[in-house]
Amino acid sequence: MQQMISRELSPLNLEFPFHSLSSEITPNDQFYVRCHFPIPRIDLDSFRLTIEGSVDRDVSFSLSEIRQLPKVTRRVTLECAGNGRIFLVPQVKGAQWEMGAVSTAEWTGTPLSALLELAGVNANALDLIMEGVDQGKAKEPPAPPGEIRYSRSIPIAKALSDVLIAYDMNHEPLSPEHGAPLRAVVPRWFGMASVKWLSRIIVSDRPFRGYFQTTDYAYWKPQHGALVQTPLSEIQIKAQIASPRAREVVPRDASYRVHGAAWGACEVSKVELSLDGGETFQTATLLGEKHAGAWRLWEYHWRTPVKPRSVQLIARAWDSHGRTQPLDRDGNWGTYVICHALPIEITVA
Amino acid sequence: MQQMISRELSPLNLEFPFHSLSSEITPNDQFYVRCHFPIPRIDLDSFRLTIEGSVDRDVSFSLSEIRQLPKVTRRVTLECAGNGRIFLVPQVKGAQWEMGAVSTAEWTGTPLSALLELAGVNANALDLIMEGVDQGKAKEPPAPPGEIRYSRSIPIAKALSDVLIAYDMNHEPLSPEHGAPLRAVVPRWFGMASVKWLSRIIVSDRPFRGYFQTTDYAYWKPQHGALVQTPLSEIQIKAQIASPRAREVVPRDASYRVHGAAWGACEVSKVELSLDGGETFQTATLLGEKHAGAWRLWEYHWRTPVKPRSVQLIARAWDSHGRTQPLDRDGNWGTYVICHALPIEITVA
Repeated sequence: MQQMISRELSPLNLEFPFHSLSSEITPNDQFYVRCHFPIPRIDLDSFRLTIEGSVDRDVSFSLSEIRQLPKVTRRVTLECAGNGRIFLVPQVKGAQWEMGAVSTAEWTGTPLSALLELAGVNANALDLIMEGVDQGKAKEPPAPPGEIRYSRSIPIAKALSDVLIAYDMNHEPLSPEHGAPLRAVVPRWFGMASVKWLSRIIVSDRPFRGYFQTTDYAYWKPQHGALVQTPLSEIQIKAQIASPRAREVVPRDASYRVHGAAWGACEVSKVELSLDGGETFQTATLLGEKHAGAWRLWEYHWRTPVKPRSVQLIARAWDSHGRTQPLDRDGNWGTYVICHALPIEITVA
Repeated sequence: MQQMISRELSPLNLEFPFHSLSSEITPNDQFYVRCHFPIPRIDLDSFRLTIEGSVDRDVSFSLSEIRQLPKVTRRVTLECAGNGRIFLVPQVKGAQWEMGAVSTAEWTGTPLSALLELAGVNANALDLIMEGVDQGKAKEPPAPPGEIRYSRSIPIAKALSDVLIAYDMNHEPLSPEHGAPLRAVVPRWFGMASVKWLSRIIVSDRPFRGYFQTTDYAYWKPQHGALVQTPLSEIQIKAQIASPRAREVVPRDASYRVHGAAWGACEVSKVELSLDGGETFQTATLLGEKHAGAWRLWEYHWRTPVKPRSVQLIARAWDSHGRTQPLDRDGNWGTYVICHALPIEITVA
């Protein structure tokens, strides 16, 4: 088994070794770990998930009450919004993720909509805030002065249609580093929305502007000829090459299986691979079945050059709306959303 | 004449020497100067102020067209949101203003409402963005990648009722450092809303989230048991002592005139002065007439102690809603809104 790659030890941030990608489901002990604060200790007997705010009635649930609600299992890929940050030049602040701040699991839990139905969402509801038990001092200014809890919001329409409150991950109870006993799983959104150690839900009549969607996890969106700070939300269409790895030496005049994964907020319709630094693109083969909200593995059987030389590989994905990856970095994403096509340099020898 | 105090030379940031306060109107060459970017060069002949967005018709005005519109003159105090920052311990980022990032002038111009009437504001209008000609790279992260113009928004209700588009300052044309040829004057709000070198107004159907009201000029407001990033807006009730100055030596057993100014978003109803470090407070005398949106000068005739000793003076203002200044700093204001009562240490000798 491949070792996880450490990106930060306190708080714990571990990367899935993406070059070891071999199955659609990431094993639990290989699934990337993203923490903002120390992993909280939670007493399972007294634990309750509460819902308050713009609802008919405040409600709260014990873990056994939640496990008795309608249960669904869903395959969802989570990608950290900072995945690929190590490719940015010059280096920017934040964990230096390479390609493995992305993983896929089968999550079992109850739809958030089932919980909200019991609370009764008011007509003025606009935003839904999810708060974890984890807390600490925010890292970068501007930041609130004391300790804060991790919290993040999603629009009420998303909350009512497409969010899971999960307690099992790949058919095992969630582990502490993955948010035990309860976490949100928000398909199609960057991982920061899938709040771990979830204990409090607030339905709000206004857009939430907490630290983790203003100072952190936001980007600059053109509006009115200016740029406005906007919370990150949906993942962007993206393909990554698992094999070969950067700087790998591959045999000349041989058959080589180039493979990787591709994902986005919408269905992946095509993956293309360039073996000549972007001059021409070949169509790769999509593997397996499509699962809405999960990545798609792909492969391309390459006949390597006869003569030794260096080669630049570029993969790019297309989605069902005809969108593909830009070849250049858009600086408005700040330190996040590294979604432009990333060249991989290898040697044929 | 007292010299202005330099706080930053590029961009230019100059402080009014507040201890020299002697009149309700600050002379133009003493009025504090706050710039975010280099002072722009503007061709007056081709200059136009444009209004666009959620309006019936885009409109634009030359300077002579604006001068032909209804004219009002209004006395307004402007205070930089960072006024008093030098008192914060430990030191925080930003210009180290002492007490003089506040000044008062008589501004002449046309009400913004008159311009908006000509454009026809739509029913869905929510926010009004004012953009200056000045531009540069934003200083603190998170920041947009390129150069941006200075811009700031106010709610449409405020824009329609209480904003002046000024071209004269104390009956002289605006000078370049004060925003020539046109600037906004937004009474009761911190100075960051009174956009200088104003050239573009956008009426918007959503809250604006530009750099200067998110990363910069924002604070943390309690909401839903969390803290949310909120644009700074109204000035807070505040009194400052102009004389004596900190560390001044005043004669013992003598009559001494303690004086200063007080201001806030609402009417100043009372100024109190403590001569014993906050144990007891005496009521000071308010001078002159009240002018909505302008400071009020005040004085207190003090019989100094017979025996030499050090004395701590504290002034605090009250407004017509019964609000007064806190004695302790509220960290949620970040690097802005230094509105708690500030003790002044002096020596009687």
